[in-house]
Order: sequence, then structure tokens, then C-alpha cells
Amino acid sequence: MLAIAGTTPAAAEEGMWTFDNFPEAQVREAYGWAPDQAWLDHTRQAAVRLTGGCSASFVSPQGLILTNHHCVASCLFDNSTAAADLLDAGFIAGRREDEVACPGQQAEVVTGITDVTGRVRTALEGLGGEALTRARDAAIAAIEDENCTDRATTRCQVVTLFGGGQYKLYTYRKYSDVRLVWAPEDRAATFGGDPDNFNFPRYSMDASFLRAYENGQPVQPAAHLKWNPRAPQEGEPTFVVGNPGSTSRLYTQSQLAFEREVALPASVTSFSELRGRLIAAMQGSEERAREGLDLLNGIENSLKVYIGRQRALNDPAFTARLASAETDLRGRTDVTAGDPWEQVSEAVGAYRTLYLPYRYTQPSADLYAYAHDLVMAAQERAKPNAERLPAYSDSALPLLEKEVLDERPIYPWLEELRLSWSLSKAREYLGVDDADTRLLLGRESPEQLAARLVAGTKLADPAYRRQLWEGGLAAIQASDDPLIRYALQLEPRQRELQQQVDAQYRGPLAAAGAKLTDARFAAYGDSQYPDATFTLRISYGKVAGWEERGTTVPFATNLGGTFDRATGSAPFDLARGFAARENEIDRDATYDFVTTNDIIGGNSGSPVIDRAGTVIGAAFDGNIHSLGGNYGYDPALNRTVVVSTEAVQEALETIYPAPALVRELAGG
Amino acid sequence: MLAIAGTTPAAAEEGMWTFDNFPEAQVREAYGWAPDQAWLDHTRQAAVRLTGGCSASFVSPQGLILTNHHCVASCLFDNSTAAADLLDAGFIAGRREDEVACPGQQAEVVTGITDVTGRVRTALEGLGGEALTRARDAAIAAIEDENCTDRATTRCQVVTLFGGGQYKLYTYRKYSDVRLVWAPEDRAATFGGDPDNFNFPRYSMDASFLRAYENGQPVQPAAHLKWNPRAPQEGEPTFVVGNPGSTSRLYTQSQLAFEREVALPASVTSFSELRGRLIAAMQGSEERAREGLDLLNGIENSLKVYIGRQRALNDPAFTARLASAETDLRGRTDVTAGDPWEQVSEAVGAYRTLYLPYRYTQPSADLYAYAHDLVMAAQERAKPNAERLPAYSDSALPLLEKEVLDERPIYPWLEELRLSWSLSKAREYLGVDDADTRLLLGRESPEQLAARLVAGTKLADPAYRRQLWEGGLAAIQASDDPLIRYALQLEPRQRELQQQVDAQYRGPLAAAGAKLTDARFAAYGDSQYPDATFTLRISYGKVAGWEERGTTVPFATNLGGTFDRATGSAPFDLARGFAARENEIDRDATYDFVTTNDIIGGNSGSPVIDRAGTVIGAAFDGNIHSLGGNYGYDPALNRTVVVSTEAVQEALETIYPAPALVRELAGG
Repeated sequence: MLAIAGTTPAAAEEGMWTFDNFPEAQVREAYGWAPDQAWLDHTRQAAVRLTGGCSASFVSPQGLILTNHHCVASCLFDNSTAAADLLDAGFIAGRREDEVACPGQQAEVVTGITDVTGRVRTALEGLGGEALTRARDAAIAAIEDENCTDRATTRCQVVTLFGGGQYKLYTYRKYSDVRLVWAPEDRAATFGGDPDNFNFPRYSMDASFLRAYENGQPVQPAAHLKWNPRAPQEGEPTFVVGNPGSTSRLYTQSQLAFEREVALPASVTSFSELRGRLIAAMQGSEERAREGLDLLNGIENSLKVYIGRQRALNDPAFTARLASAETDLRGRTDVTAGDPWEQVSEAVGAYRTLYLPYRYTQPSADLYAYAHDLVMAAQERAKPNAERLPAYSDSALPLLEKEVLDERPIYPWLEELRLSWSLSKAREYLGVDDADTRLLLGRESPEQLAARLVAGTKLADPAYRRQLWEGGLAAIQASDDPLIRYALQLEPRQRELQQQVDAQYRGPLAAAGAKLTDARFAAYGDSQYPDATFTLRISYGKVAGWEERGTTVPFATNLGGTFDRATGSAPFDLARGFAARENEIDRDATYDFVTTNDIIGGNSGSPVIDRAGTVIGAAFDGNIHSLGGNYGYDPALNRTVVVSTEAVQEALETIYPAPALVRELAGG
Repeated sequence: MLAIAGTTPAAAEEGMWTFDNFPEAQVREAYGWAPDQAWLDHTRQAAVRLTGGCSASFVSPQGLILTNHHCVASCLFDNSTAAADLLDAGFIAGRREDEVACPGQQAEVVTGITDVTGRVRTALEGLGGEALTRARDAAIAAIEDENCTDRATTRCQVVTLFGGGQYKLYTYRKYSDVRLVWAPEDRAATFGGDPDNFNFPRYSMDASFLRAYENGQPVQPAAHLKWNPRAPQEGEPTFVVGNPGSTSRLYTQSQLAFEREVALPASVTSFSELRGRLIAAMQGSEERAREGLDLLNGIENSLKVYIGRQRALNDPAFTARLASAETDLRGRTDVTAGDPWEQVSEAVGAYRTLYLPYRYTQPSADLYAYAHDLVMAAQERAKPNAERLPAYSDSALPLLEKEVLDERPIYPWLEELRLSWSLSKAREYLGVDDADTRLLLGRESPEQLAARLVAGTKLADPAYRRQLWEGGLAAIQASDDPLIRYALQLEPRQRELQQQVDAQYRGPLAAAGAKLTDARFAAYGDSQYPDATFTLRISYGKVAGWEERGTTVPFATNLGGTFDRATGSAPFDLARGFAARENEIDRDATYDFVTTNDIIGGNSGSPVIDRAGTVIGAAFDGNIHSLGGNYGYDPALNRTVVVSTEAVQEALETIYPAPALVRELAGG
């Protein structure tokens, strides 16, 4: 049976629970045991959020961080040159001073969770539309401002839970100097490539280590998880602690219809074409093959997620269960004072009209993103904190500044490819004669415009970006950089569309979301978990394979299986380290395994923790069924895919030897 | 109101009618006049089917044929070299001896339509599954065999109408030597490119002329349409006579669900990636830009059709009307002796399982298609006619032989690109560990396999293809050509899947289709038109713009508008001929116009005929709304897009002068 999150009490193993509402009774019933508060506090303090979009954990008292290889791929890539390809070769820092900085990356640890629902909901009482979103943004900015005065080491974020039903203040200790310690060869992590991504059985060393620094010294975290390089046991309980990015399990039928009918087809179609453009362009030369790889991996991963969601929403059995859950809740809800489902439906109706212009007036490319952020930040910083767009509030600015100013390589051909692709999709979806298309293109073609902007801009130079950031609005207005001029040209229309989306969609959704949450709690009690928000959650489950079309998928693979699966042709070619150490590698060591934990993108790198509180793996993927997990969790089929600490230990000892790291982990 | 074809009496202007069931009363009611039998016979005799997938008409007594530019683009392309790019430059044959042959092209004129429903339905009475499709194929092969003994000049085709409700024998006079006479520059025809495709207002010279030859002499057709280079009048009746390729208006709800949930997402996703691969590869060099253009145009056109269909089936208002039409027919039908909708639904259920392997075990590339056709033709020709697959029956073989043996250029990079793309999609949709994936790839990657096959094959050489065709099965079995070996390796599995599809899907559908047709005629009478089958149809309508979001789209553009729309950047750059003759061109001449005629892909090149029986344009497109026309016709929005004879005359006189052609048309 497929239980649907939130609208009925969660099924066993379902849920991405907040640490202030851990389902202790459910866990105890499932396993005859549940973590106590000390266990929970310890793991919470050891859990790390990586602002690049991943999860992680401290695993030594010297700030050592365990995460996935794919979470540091961009860092490897940004530190690579044609002569020294760290992504391809892997990276081992023999000494602390060899550890290299990861551009744009920041590590964050939750230090407190405070309920601020009352204050925020009071601030927006009686308001609707744009006024509501403005009041909400102002209230949130004020709360964040009051609680994080030291912005160098702390970060405050008010998180909207249950689509506007609850608001919680999360405070973080932040570490903005994150360095790379160890990573295997890319092929060891991406063995099987896109074809094996989101599949199992799997043979992937998707693990890496980072270290957090502060003032040039390794950080001493408040807590760390004990490294436990053992094999998982079938059936043993596992806890995944991390930051699931986003789910849509509380979506109403009208929201799901919009996803299925409008948003997903546009995403799948557009990104498939981008994938094709990139694959072919990378075949042009070895240099381009290297330079495009990180982006291609990202696109293929996102695309597979979108395709999986589209498949789930095109599965009549799956959608029927979602529909029946909504029917159940409606039957238990008194709507005489206003029907929140109808309010959501009206908001979605308005969004159907706004969606395409809103989406396609935001061109895609790193250089354009710099220009956009610089322009918007300069304009917003000139306003009082409470009146700014949330992305530019005082609490959000430090990370944005770091992301804009950190040095990283820019490949003009790649920028031009993305920009001309996104502009051509804008023209396709909006139409040649649309006013927004004219605003975007003028009389130029997407190809001409992209070539001109990329060739003319100086924004690839971090010194120039710093000059504009520090120069503020005056510097922006005085700049003759073509991408800055272009971002200035688009900005009024982008703001106008943002206002319309806030007024007609986000505002009404927040108001209806609060009512739906109240209805949900009234109907099913308070053992509910909110949709994912890239904030810290804990999921419980167990080590278990699954049944599929009459056959059993075993719960684990071992290192030796890699050699059986290798065909010699990419992406099933052996990593060089594996080939060289074939006779030394412990073939029986557990490599990857699956658990019933309920996770989603953003959980990558999450520690998989056993009953004793020690780490036995790093979650790096879901199986193919878990892609529908965006909308609902199926305990029979959805699985988390984990690289075992036993395999990582074998890599550290035998395949990509790092003796200092082995010692540090053993001493933890 | 959107009337749904077939399930209720057709709305005014709806329908792709067969010539033996012309809706005379409906036309008379709409226009106070209707064509008589002589008018119908004359236009039928002048109508030409082009086997490349287009429609056309004779417009002179010397075998001159009017069609679209995009219907001859492949011919221009196949006759081009880097030094002489006919597609780019256009083509004017000053003398008969300059007219160049079009590879693979054949012109066909209907000479008779005979109802053979009784004979076929009797042959399959009481049968089901694969037995039914075998009996049907045998009966059809026998009928075709008996009626077309002279295969050099005639062709017989038994057409399945109403999904198995009716069978009709179409006999054709065929002309297998078709030559190019006149074509404008590519940019004159494709002004606005893919962005303007399926849109209006439009500024496209999508017209060309061919000539049919026999024994080295121009053909003297039994009839031709009088060339009438005048402007269309708003509201005047128009008749489109041509060969709509395929529609799905009689699909049941379960068939539509399969399209929406499975087939269309796979097509849109796969072809979007191919589009991207091709765009980027073509940017690699000017040579590749030229060599890839014809394929890119084809892919973008197909993709737009798929996206339009996906949008239509994701439009709740549109699908609700289709559902209600089915409900209406069900309400009028007695299903106590078996429910045909349920039978269709069961067949579709089986097809859901078979579809992906059936689709993806057929790799895509011209060279592979040669190999496949050579292998299958050799095997099938060794059997009695009645036991062959329909594509290899005696009546089908002559055209297949021509298509396989005609000389045309092959570009290895393009073959490799398509083949590796289609193999990588097979692996993606079937899964790495699937037996069919292993059959397709062995231990090679899609890229390696495609490179090896394309580099090693001799099938680009027409002499080698002829040697294999004439050598039959023995030559095939003795060949060491890697693509022939590969096709031989796939063939048993392809046949197995074909048998399963016949047994579980096509057979049951044919049986249910007959019942549904009987139900439809019983409920709504005999003024019904069947789904399109790339056979001759006539559509009636009128010259008319439409209303969209409160504004009126005018019914026509004029030549002068081209200069206003031109931006100077591709694809909105002026054709050189237009730029050079800007001051001479008659700016007021009607360029393109729209009519309410109900057409679909395959109708391209169809003559647009006025009440007097003269030709006033060539249909070349539908508007964006017409893409939903695959499933249902909406008289308020669906429009046919036509290039006017007035504009073509201006081109022949002023822009791309062809005095001999002007004289020939005037004398017609």
C-alpha cells in the first residue's frame, strides 16, 4: 500500500522528520527501540549542510567531513586544469597544507530550532496576495535580523513549513572555508554513469572527505560521528540525517495537474535538448569533454529526476492514490468558511498564465547569473532590510557575496551554449511575436546575442565582480559591461512578473496552505512531517532489498562485483585504481547497499547512522522508484542507496591510499 | 464548440473525406453549392501522392506538378554538394534536360476505389490475435496481387479504414521518375524557421514544381488543375485534396491515455535530445551545418508535432470533450455481447509492456535502415506472397526496391550521430541490465558500436546495395558487412516482438475496431469519415482568420510584410532574392493565407482548389492549434496555412524568374 505523506498518518519508514518532532513512538513500535534525546542531539550537532546543495557529517574532532564524491565534483572541477584534471584523477591531500579550497562552498550546523509560527501568522493576518507575501518577507527578515547579529559565524533562516502552516527559525554555526581532503577517481564514483544513476545494484565509490576551516585552522566541531567501517546487516535499523531539498507531497490535485500538464513537460523537453547540445559539443574535443563534464552530470541527474516525476504522475495507479488521499482529507474538513482546495486551484489557474514568462525571462548561464545577482544585490541593498526580496536580506547576503566573488573557472563556449539554448527555448515557449521574447532578443538571434554577451563581458574576472559588488548601485549603473546592461534591461520585467506571481500565486498559496495544515492536523493529529525544505531532517528505516516483477533485488553489492560488471567501455570501464589493485582489493567487502529510508535530492552525502550512533555509510542516491517519492513514499519499492564505510575504508587503505586519513578516522 | 470526429456527426468544415463518400449535403448546406461528380472526378485525377510523404497536383498537360518546397527539400539536398548547394541557392531548370531526378521519390494518382470490406472481414471471421493479423495480411496481399498485375505502372493498396471497420482497395497509376523543375531559395521557404513553423501570420514561399517522367518523356496526365494566380477572397469556399498521413480521432480513452502517458513523453524526450545533439554538431563546421540541415528540419517539425499533441492531451478542456464523446457513443451501444472499449483497453494494457522493447530494438539511421530492409526483403521474398509481412508483399516491393537502390549522399558523421543516439536511448529506456540492451550493445558502448558499424559498412555504396538486393538471401548470408551482420543479429528478436504486438495488440484492436465502427454507424448514420491513412481525401472549408485571446488573426499576409518582419538575423534574415528584388516585388500580393480546411501532416503540397476547380494555393502547414487536430478538430481555432498562387506567380516572374514555367502554367 502506498501511504501518502501528511494526509494520512505516515506509513512505517515514511517521513523526513524535523528534529523537534521526532516520531519516537513509531520508531519504538517498528524496532522495539528508539533514539533518546542525547542520541538525537549528538547526531544533530554532527550533521552538516553544504550550501552547494548536499548533506554531510563531521567524522573527526579536527573538522573532517564525510560527504559524496558527486557533492565535491564541482570543487574538483573548479580546481582542475587541462594539465591537472583532479576530477578525472581523484585527489589525496597528504598533508593539511595540501587541502584545497572549494569555491562557493559553505558548511553549516544547526544550533537551534525555534517556533515562530505565531509571530509570522499574526503579521499576515487578514492580508492577501502581494501584501501577504510582503508582510511575510518583512516579518521573516526582522526575525532573522534580531537573532543573528554575528553574521561572520552564524546564519539565521526562517523556514516555511507545511506550505505556510508553520514557520520555524533555524540558527546555524557556519564555516565558509571548506577544503577538499580526499576524493577517488571520477570513474570510481561514476562507474555506470548516467545509465546506472538512480538504479541498483550499484558499484559506486560515491564518497569524499572535506575539512572545515576557520581563521586558517581546522574547525573543532561540537560533535562528530564515530567512523565505523563495518558491513551493514540486513534488517538493521538505519537513520539518515540530512537536508532533503524539496518534496511536493502536500500538493493538492490542482498543483499536481499543473506539474504533469505544464511544468514537467517543459522541463523534460528543454533539458533533453540541452543535454543533447552538450553531449555533441563535448565530442568536439578532449578539452571540451573535460570542461563540460560537470555540467553534463548535473543536467543528466536533474533530467532523470524530472523524467521519473513525469512517469510517476503519468502512472494512473499512483495518481489515484494521491487523489483518494485528498478526497479523504476533504471529507474530514469543514469548508463552509472557505474552501482552501478551491483557493489553491484558483492560484494555480493564475500561475498557468504567468509560468512561461516567469520561467523564460530568466536566462541560464553562470555569467548571466553573476550579472543578475550583482544588479539585484546592488538595488536591494539600497533598501531597508524589511523591504528587500528574501534572497537579498541581511541574513542571505553573506553567502550570496561568497558565491559571487569566489574565484572559479569560466569556459566561454559553455556559457555561450547555455545562454543561446535558454534564449532559444524562451523564444520557442513564448513565441516569436511575444513582447518578452522581443525584450530578451531585440532583433538578434539567440546565437548572436549569446555570442556578443559572452565575448564582451568581463564578469569572468573575480576582481571585476568584486569591484561591482563593492561599488554598489553607482558602479552597476556606470558599468558598460554588456551582461550588466542586459541584466539591467531585463530586471524591471522580472520584478513585475515576480510581483504578479507573489500576488496571484504565492500569496494565495500561503494563505490556503495555513488552512490546509490546520485541517490536516485536525484530521490526523500532530504526528506529521512537512514537505522537504533543504533543512535538517531525520529519516528512520532499515537495511532491505526489494521485490520487483517477481525477483528479489539483494540489499547489497560487494567490491568484487565491479570487476564482473565492467565491460571495458565507458561508463562501464574500470577506474584505473581498481584495475591496478584488482588482486589486492577485498572482493567480499560490502560496496553499496539499500535501505528503506525516505530521502530525496539534497540528502546526498547524508550519514547513514546505526543504532549505536556510528556512521556506516553515506547516502548518495535513491532507486528509480524513489523518483516518484517527490509526491508520495512507497515502502515496498522506494529505497535509499548508500556507499558503505567498509568500502570507503578499503579505498582509503588499498585503492586510493590515504594513511593519515585512516589514522584520523580511527582516532575519532 | 469542439466537435469530435466520428463519434458525433462532423461539425461544419470538419473531416478528411474519402472520395467515395463526399459529404455533398453538408457542403451544399454550408455554401449553397457543392461540387458535382465531374468536378470531383477531375480533381481526383489531377491529385498526386508523393511517396516521400507529401501531396501534390498536376498543373499542366506536360506532367508539371505543384507541391511544397519542404516536400522537395530532401531532393535538393540529395542533389547538393559543398560546391553547389541547391537547397541554399534554390533551383531553376531553364530547359527540360536540366531537370534533375529526386532519389526515392514516386508520384501516384488514384485510378479506382473498390470496397473489399466483405472479403477481408469474412477472411478473419472468428479469428483473434496473431491468427487474425496473418489472415488479414494474406487476404490483403491476395487482393492486391489479383488487381495489379502490371507492377511497372500500377500499384494496388488495400487500406484499413475505421481501425478495421472497412477495407478499400485503392489502385494507382504510378510514375517512378520524378524530377525537380523549380524551387526557391531555402530561406524564402523557411523564413522564420522553426520558430514560425506551425504559426501564422506567416511569410513563406513554401512552393516548388516537379515533373513526372516515363520512358524519359514528360508524362501526359489524365487531368490537371488550371493554374489560377489570383488572391484568395475572405470567406470563399476552398477544397483541399491530398493525403493526410495519420490521425487518431477514433482513439478510445485507453488509447489516448497510452499516448499521453507513455508514447508522447518518450518521443518528445528522445527527439529533443537528438535535436540538441544535431544543433551542436552542426555548429562544428559550415560543412556539417549544410549536411545536417535537412535532418534537423525534419526532426524539429516532428518534435513540434509531438509537443503540440502532448499539449492537447494535457489540456483538460480538450480531453474532457473527447471523453464525453466516448461516453455518448457508449450510451448508445449495446455491449452485452462484448464490450469493444474493454477489448481495446486490454490490448493497450498488453502494448504498454511491449512498447519500449518494440520501439527501441529498431535502431535509427539511414545505413541501418538499408541493412534492415535488405535483410528483411531477402528473407521475405523467399516466402509465398500471402505469408509475407505486409511491407514486403509483391505490391509493396517495387517502391521499397527503388528507395533502397536509388543513389543519394550519405554523411558518415550524421549516421554515427543518429545511431549512437538511438542506441543510447535504447539503453536508457530499457535499462542497462535488460536482455534487449545486451542484444543491441553487447559489451560495446553506443558510441563505440555506432562508430564501428558506420566505419565498416559498404552500404553507402548503391552498387553494393544492388548486389545484395539482387543476390537475395544467399548474398545476405554470405555478406561480412558489419551492418548486415548486425541487422541479422537483431532480426529474430524484432520478429518475435512483432508477433507479440500482432497477437496481443494489433489483432485485438482490429477485431474491436470493426465492432466500434459498426456501433458508430448505427448510432450516427453513415456520414462519417475515417481516420487519416495517407490516402486521398478531400476537405472543404473557407478562407478565414480566427480569434485568439480577444484579437483577430487576419486571414492573409502579403509579400511586403516579409520586409517588415525581417530582422537580419537567422532565421529572420531575408532570402537573397527578396533582398535583391525589394523594389520590384509587388508588396500587396497575397503571400500566405489561412482556411478552415481540416488537414494534417501528409497534406503538405495539397492543392487548394476554388469553386471553379482551379488551384489558388498549396497547403503547407497548420496553425499551432491544428496540432491537437490529431485527436479532434476545432472549427474556431484549427487552420490550414497556404501559400497563394499569386505569390508563387510573383516569384516565378520577379524573384526567381522562370519564364518557360510561367508560359507553361499560363497555357494550362
